[in-house]
Amino acid sequence: MNLNKVIFIMGVSGCGKSTIGKLLSEELRIPFFDGDDFHPPSNIKKMSNGIPLNDEDRYDWLVTLNELAKNQLQNNSCVIVCSALKESYREILSRDIKNQVKWVHLAGSFEQILERLNNRKNHFMSSDLLQSQFTTLEQPKDALVVNIGLKPQEIVEEITKKIKMKSEFGLFGLGVMGKSLSRNLAQKGFDISLFNREAKGTEENVAIDFKNAHQELESAQAFSDIEAFVNSLQAPRKIMLMVNAGKITDMVIEDLIPFLSDGDVLIDGGNSNYLNTKERYDYLKAKNIHFIGVGVSGGEEGALKGPSIMPGGNKETYNLVKPYLESIAAKDVNDLPCCTYIGEEGSGHFVKMVHNGIEYVEMQLLAEVYTILKHLGNNPDEIADILESWKSTADSYLLGITVDVLRRKEGNDWLVNKIVDKAGNKGTGNWTTIATAQLGTPSTLIASALFARYTSFYKEERLQASQNFTINPSAINLNIEEVLKAYQFARIVNHYQGLKLISEAGKAYEWQLNLSEIARIWTNGCIIKSDLIMELKSVLKENDNILTNKTIINQVKSLKPSINKVVSECILNELAIPCLSESVSFFNGYTTANSSANLIQAQRDYFGAHTYQRTDDASGKFHHTNW
Amino acid sequence: MNLNKVIFIMGVSGCGKSTIGKLLSEELRIPFFDGDDFHPPSNIKKMSNGIPLNDEDRYDWLVTLNELAKNQLQNNSCVIVCSALKESYREILSRDIKNQVKWVHLAGSFEQILERLNNRKNHFMSSDLLQSQFTTLEQPKDALVVNIGLKPQEIVEEITKKIKMKSEFGLFGLGVMGKSLSRNLAQKGFDISLFNREAKGTEENVAIDFKNAHQELESAQAFSDIEAFVNSLQAPRKIMLMVNAGKITDMVIEDLIPFLSDGDVLIDGGNSNYLNTKERYDYLKAKNIHFIGVGVSGGEEGALKGPSIMPGGNKETYNLVKPYLESIAAKDVNDLPCCTYIGEEGSGHFVKMVHNGIEYVEMQLLAEVYTILKHLGNNPDEIADILESWKSTADSYLLGITVDVLRRKEGNDWLVNKIVDKAGNKGTGNWTTIATAQLGTPSTLIASALFARYTSFYKEERLQASQNFTINPSAINLNIEEVLKAYQFARIVNHYQGLKLISEAGKAYEWQLNLSEIARIWTNGCIIKSDLIMELKSVLKENDNILTNKTIINQVKSLKPSINKVVSECILNELAIPCLSESVSFFNGYTTANSSANLIQAQRDYFGAHTYQRTDDASGKFHHTNW
Repeated sequence: MNLNKVIFIMGVSGCGKSTIGKLLSEELRIPFFDGDDFHPPSNIKKMSNGIPLNDEDRYDWLVTLNELAKNQLQNNSCVIVCSALKESYREILSRDIKNQVKWVHLAGSFEQILERLNNRKNHFMSSDLLQSQFTTLEQPKDALVVNIGLKPQEIVEEITKKIKMKSEFGLFGLGVMGKSLSRNLAQKGFDISLFNREAKGTEENVAIDFKNAHQELESAQAFSDIEAFVNSLQAPRKIMLMVNAGKITDMVIEDLIPFLSDGDVLIDGGNSNYLNTKERYDYLKAKNIHFIGVGVSGGEEGALKGPSIMPGGNKETYNLVKPYLESIAAKDVNDLPCCTYIGEEGSGHFVKMVHNGIEYVEMQLLAEVYTILKHLGNNPDEIADILESWKSTADSYLLGITVDVLRRKEGNDWLVNKIVDKAGNKGTGNWTTIATAQLGTPSTLIASALFARYTSFYKEERLQASQNFTINPSAINLNIEEVLKAYQFARIVNHYQGLKLISEAGKAYEWQLNLSEIARIWTNGCIIKSDLIMELKSVLKENDNILTNKTIINQVKSLKPSINKVVSECILNELAIPCLSESVSFFNGYTTANSSANLIQAQRDYFGAHTYQRTDDASGKFHHTNW
Repeated sequence: MNLNKVIFIMGVSGCGKSTIGKLLSEELRIPFFDGDDFHPPSNIKKMSNGIPLNDEDRYDWLVTLNELAKNQLQNNSCVIVCSALKESYREILSRDIKNQVKWVHLAGSFEQILERLNNRKNHFMSSDLLQSQFTTLEQPKDALVVNIGLKPQEIVEEITKKIKMKSEFGLFGLGVMGKSLSRNLAQKGFDISLFNREAKGTEENVAIDFKNAHQELESAQAFSDIEAFVNSLQAPRKIMLMVNAGKITDMVIEDLIPFLSDGDVLIDGGNSNYLNTKERYDYLKAKNIHFIGVGVSGGEEGALKGPSIMPGGNKETYNLVKPYLESIAAKDVNDLPCCTYIGEEGSGHFVKMVHNGIEYVEMQLLAEVYTILKHLGNNPDEIADILESWKSTADSYLLGITVDVLRRKEGNDWLVNKIVDKAGNKGTGNWTTIATAQLGTPSTLIASALFARYTSFYKEERLQASQNFTINPSAINLNIEEVLKAYQFARIVNHYQGLKLISEAGKAYEWQLNLSEIARIWTNGCIIKSDLIMELKSVLKENDNILTNKTIINQVKSLKPSINKVVSECILNELAIPCLSESVSFFNGYTTANSSANLIQAQRDYFGAHTYQRTDDASGKFHHTNW
């Protein structure tokens, strides 16, 4: 389908058609035509002799303009200026191209236009002549009517906006997530522009092919040229980057900068490191360009149907993009969007990073449960049945997809059995572990889950080690209920740690974080949505530390004996369950009033004179002993 | 004691005394005096009438010069030029100040000097006159003889070096480690300059007070002025920085730069981050200044008696400082220095960082053993006895100091009981954990030990949690032998992981690392020296992976049942033993041929289309399923 348009600027003499038409054509970078330039010689002769044209005179001329419009539409849009006062004239002008014609009527009062005409240099129009124009004018029904009292630039802006020659939102980068978000935006009725680079052999016609493949993208504009993409957007431009985090993001920003204007907004929807987001914010601020770092969770499907969105940055800038982000976000149980302003700087990306860290652990815990249930003699279908039965007490998106995964068969075997056990990672688990180390907040399970993936990667070394060290193959003495309880225990510790990390980062960076709101936007759309998160949303209204909540305390107490038993049994039977094991290790340390760290302080003071504090000196002074 | 010196430049007429004397005084920034300027009027009259001076004439003059020297010595060193051909003259010149006088004899052959004299403008000396000078000259016994055939600048260099007016090595920063290293260098006979900044109220007269407090520093030069400190060093200058890692190091480098010359060497002996070391190397290279990053382990005592030293950087630069570093290093069992060139860039600091990571774990394991033994009903003295008995099978420096620490009493109680259980850290454990995350190499125990310290820091939260969650107080069914074996198992895993991290970093950064040599320099002087390291030094000659060594494999196999039992018992009894627990978790994962990571890959492909590899596709191609 041809999306080119012809914009006819119409109105009585003196309404400013030429001025506006030219400005508009410059703004849209499309050709401009003044209708008066296309009169046949006979008409020109008549007019120069002061004889008014009749409708017959006008017919050929109008047909000429209609031909001009048709020709232009084959290659591009264009602006044509023509008073077009009567419906019959407009009928001829738009013949065969009705769907591609946009009428813009520049309207003003008689007095307004008369005064304007008489202010023009070397120009005089009698009030009678103007009155005849007003008499002839048949108000068009489907035109965009713009009041000529506005400034020319304002008129042009209103036209570009209202006739949707310019998109309101741009999406840069059409990978898995970018494509899903584009379709989501289009489905919500937004006019969008799409960009994907052109790379011979690997990325050819990505944007246009993608647009053509989806009905909802019919009115979207597709580009592989950055300048044209940027120019297709209404000011202030709102461009969401969906590109690989890291250097690519910086390169893309550099590519965009030459074409951006003051006040434009870049929205980084990738999994960028929160520290980079802060740097980019500062860098772009110096260029008067706004920058918002947005965490988006939900995977391919979530991005399409409604992801969970975690935006961070300046609050006023967020308000510019809020309508788009909130519209495409998932809805929570109260039909509120799963999108909320997180806080300043890279807080949105930080929260998304920890979300992913929690996700790493939730996945690893399911993998460990799978290990145990497999060791108990269950095949993937049987494990799926067991997990399915857990939905009533411990449902989550990840539990659900794990059931689906385990049930998937290929011939007589399960597909999961054919998958190589080397788990990849794309940075966020790594960064969460680093953040945990840097902030001094022990989110130990995230590190364990990350390291389990790393260990999985040393496949060849593992194969060799499995031969050098025979593993004890005895049977475990565990029932399913105990495994479920251990799983639930570890999940609570995981969520405690992740939320604690967010809370401590909030204090360290002076973000004003609302943990309950963060949990709320995780109740739908995102990968870690679960019944537990639903519960925590309320718990967090009272206190950022979920382990001080009575209900949670009672749950943990009732689950603890099971995790103790599951972990000790697995260790005695030499099963690898690093996250389950770490959950109980951490918890035991966390609930120890008097730890063995006094010995470590003594050792440090012994060899390095690092000093220590004393239990009998409330001043907190540091002491040194000459050991 | 007054360390000022008077340098008498002596020799026959025409040997170049004045030229060299002036250059030398400029180089040393001390006053210059030409003896001839101090003749009494009677002598001047005689000489102007062509009458030679006799010894009686000379007496008062020589006494005047001796007075001049004495006066100067009260405030500073100085250079005095005087032919001083006879021993009797020199006796007068050095009267009462023999210890502070340095004789420099500028010596040349008769022909050499005659030619030189006759080349001087407007100057003629008969060969007879010169011959009489040579006849008069009584060769001094204790003078530094310098051949006048050298270039003036070379002569000055040789003098400053030989008479030790300039130090050969500078030490910047007199904290705990800086002080110990200074004394160590001085004890090895090196002439050193010491610097510490002057800070009103906190750091006053640090360098000079320190120098005065130690006999071995008698001939050291102490400074609080950077320029004077730098100028006190022989070229190329070798300055070891012993200041706080991080921004302080950069600030100190900036402070030094204006006074340094091409080819000078800065040696960073602090615990700097290895990535910063690389940056500093590059930065200083552009200024023609060499930079060596040196890890130093041994604590206060090790630094004094002989630390383990891990230098990294350019090999040729290392050779300039090698004599100093190797002299002060500890000696291994074969009397070789525990100092070896590690590799390029920040490899020295990287290896030191991992050394500290291993140290964190060794300390934490001892703290966990202490927890268990305490729980088994032993008091600190009894625990010390048990650990003492382990020295025959598992001796280490840290085990030894732990015994000392536990035995220390204060009145009727043990000091360890009075120490607050909040363990500090100074960055290297943190960095090792970050490196492990960044390099994709799971050194999980280091992370666990770091996180245990972090957890210890949340003392108030722990106190609250200990009340909310009652800990099971039952008795553990374990014997001491099992605890020892569990401890040894975890230590092997710790060393495997640390060495693996170094090995992987070596590959990633293309350092040519020799792990056996690294283990060798850890066999003495450093905090982690132990019988195990002694064993690993040999093991690593065969293979970087110690878990492929038959002896180690057999040890591990015999220890495994004990760690299984200890960890499971502790977990059932809710004791916090994160590192022991993690050692077995990691090992079980490491020895699992087919892990549960296949499920994680399936989940990732399900929600994020991240693809996976297949066991039945040897090409390693990535597949995607539409789940």
